[in-house]
Amino acid sequence: MPTTQTAPRGRILLVGATGLVGRAAHALLTPRYDVVTAGPDGCDRYLDLENTDSILAAVADPGDGGWAAVACAAGLGRFAPLHTIMPAPMAQSVYGQGLANKLLGQVNLTLAAREHLREGGSVTLVTGVATQHTLPGASGFTMANAAIEGFVRAAAIELPRGIRINVVSPGVLAESPPAVFELFAGFEPVPAARVAKAYLRSIEGGQTGQVFTVW
Amino acid sequence: MPTTQTAPRGRILLVGATGLVGRAAHALLTPRYDVVTAGPDGCDRYLDLENTDSILAAVADPGDGGWAAVACAAGLGRFAPLHTIMPAPMAQSVYGQGLANKLLGQVNLTLAAREHLREGGSVTLVTGVATQHTLPGASGFTMANAAIEGFVRAAAIELPRGIRINVVSPGVLAESPPAVFELFAGFEPVPAARVAKAYLRSIEGGQTGQVFTVW
Repeated sequence: MPTTQTAPRGRILLVGATGLVGRAAHALLTPRYDVVTAGPDGCDRYLDLENTDSILAAVADPGDGGWAAVACAAGLGRFAPLHTIMPAPMAQSVYGQGLANKLLGQVNLTLAAREHLREGGSVTLVTGVATQHTLPGASGFTMANAAIEGFVRAAAIELPRGIRINVVSPGVLAESPPAVFELFAGFEPVPAARVAKAYLRSIEGGQTGQVFTVW
Repeated sequence: MPTTQTAPRGRILLVGATGLVGRAAHALLTPRYDVVTAGPDGCDRYLDLENTDSILAAVADPGDGGWAAVACAAGLGRFAPLHTIMPAPMAQSVYGQGLANKLLGQVNLTLAAREHLREGGSVTLVTGVATQHTLPGASGFTMANAAIEGFVRAAAIELPRGIRINVVSPGVLAESPPAVFELFAGFEPVPAARVAKAYLRSIEGGQTGQVFTVW
């Protein structure tokens, strides 16, 4: 008689597993995969998106056959009203964190994961609703998110061995603290569990170069 | 009796005036505006998009009433097949030039221009067809361009005093050298003079937060 317990479909590296989205993705993926968590603390493997060596170390040694998927639910940026942002070189720019962490960190995660993913494996990155629906103070997020979605579009046609790449774009999370709803006035809150489903769809759905919006 | 010679509508700072698009924009704008050129060499004012101080100096002293418009037809990035791009921190990344020059340079130009533009003045930046229609080797351009278009969308709702911002996205230029057509196989070439019209439309058309595609 068949049981509802399915055999693990392989190993997944889940970056940012301790956040709201990461915990929901972890809960959804765990019955189906061996999930290895990565992040700055409290995870199986140490990973800081601004530390390239930590990315390289975290994606290495995926075990037999390589990762089935590498998924990211992490990435820092900074809210700031435009009138407070002054011209500055990258290292001093208010935009620097979003570009170095959320953008380049996820790009480097993708580049590092390539050789450790199994054939047909997938990368899933994260952006957010502010990419298309900007709001006051969000220019850094809109910019970095748009770049990530551009990278995904571009990388999808060049990744080797059938490796796919998509990005999940969550709306404002229903589990967010009240201050976040003040920023995102009029935005429809979405439960983190719904966002997690988009990760699963990216991992198992066969598409590549797509943005899975959850808003 | 009226003449066809119109009075100048104000002063425009044109960055990258010596390139294919810049020369065409200069030719189209000169009968209508006092055009001040800026760039790394051969221009009225020295401006290097990776040198914040040079940007601040070039946009200062716009003359009576401020700039009618600041327009940019410059921005460097790097073509590179994805398989040659390795994970690296910002300063060593193949993606660094596109992010520091074409993206952050144009962002800093916008931020620096704010206080020197007249009320209702405009900023016009530049991206390219690879934003939406990527091609092998173009991930750095797709990424940086997408970020610029995101910044324009976001900045449009926060710029003060009715200042507008748009971006012109040229296709592959008809005047390009043959090697460029090899890269952009199947892309429809567009004359630089057509691209220049999009700059004029951005400057005089009243819209903001828009991408003017010329492809």
